[in-house]
Amino acid sequence: MININIVCVGKLKENFWKEAEQEYLKRLSRFCNLKIIEIEESNQIQIEKALEIEGKDILSQIKGKTYLLAIKGKELSSEDFAKEIENSKLESSQLTFVIGSSNGVSQEVQKNLPNKISFGKVTYPHNLARVILLEQIYRAFMINTGSKYHK
Amino acid sequence: MININIVCVGKLKENFWKEAEQEYLKRLSRFCNLKIIEIEESNQIQIEKALEIEGKDILSQIKGKTYLLAIKGKELSSEDFAKEIENSKLESSQLTFVIGSSNGVSQEVQKNLPNKISFGKVTYPHNLARVILLEQIYRAFMINTGSKYHK
Repeated sequence: MININIVCVGKLKENFWKEAEQEYLKRLSRFCNLKIIEIEESNQIQIEKALEIEGKDILSQIKGKTYLLAIKGKELSSEDFAKEIENSKLESSQLTFVIGSSNGVSQEVQKNLPNKISFGKVTYPHNLARVILLEQIYRAFMINTGSKYHK
Repeated sequence: MININIVCVGKLKENFWKEAEQEYLKRLSRFCNLKIIEIEESNQIQIEKALEIEGKDILSQIKGKTYLLAIKGKELSSEDFAKEIENSKLESSQLTFVIGSSNGVSQEVQKNLPNKISFGKVTYPHNLARVILLEQIYRAFMINTGSKYHK
């Protein structure tokens, strides 16, 4: 079973996001070992400094093939994303997805994670971005197993 | 205050989606009169037939300037979407957004609603699509009022 890590900055506040996350973790447990790694949001007032601190923590958690979610990354359809996951499984038993804070990620993280993917030009809050990523990972497994979930 | 209608097919099942919807409706009540109009999902087995029935109900609920959410629609950023809403307010006091079922919408709806917008190439389940739309409408008001919510 593939290991998937989602490295993200900050906690989910609202209960409904936590429950959505739990629901997708439950559904995904059939297909992968999924781990959510929450990096502490830096309380530095200077944004650059905060991103730098968070960035070090992010980079310390990278395992296997890694994707950075970035609005200007390579835009994928759900089918493209499913293929990515399928191909990555052949290369690596570990897969990591990184979601930055609402201020993005440091230059260091940008430089170290060249695989940038995007689910669209739209900006999402980090909590919703996490749920969207979980849904797309679940959809990818549904596509790759030929389920009716994806039409 | 502008009237915004979201016409969508089917109900939200999981409680966490309902709570997410309620949270955004609460936040949006400062900016608009938002109404969610749920069209009953047709139980016709034949997809074309089901879409036709749902389509008639959808079209009966259209008011003012109308947008159909479609994966192949014009892809917008959050800033583009905010401008759309700002401009639409000058044209009309009513704004309608249509989200189809998991099988899409009928040819009739496609033909009658030429303003097709997309938040990306990715496919979402209808419940998550509704929450994403609500978040983007909220973000649009935040952008248009110069709030810090959108960075």
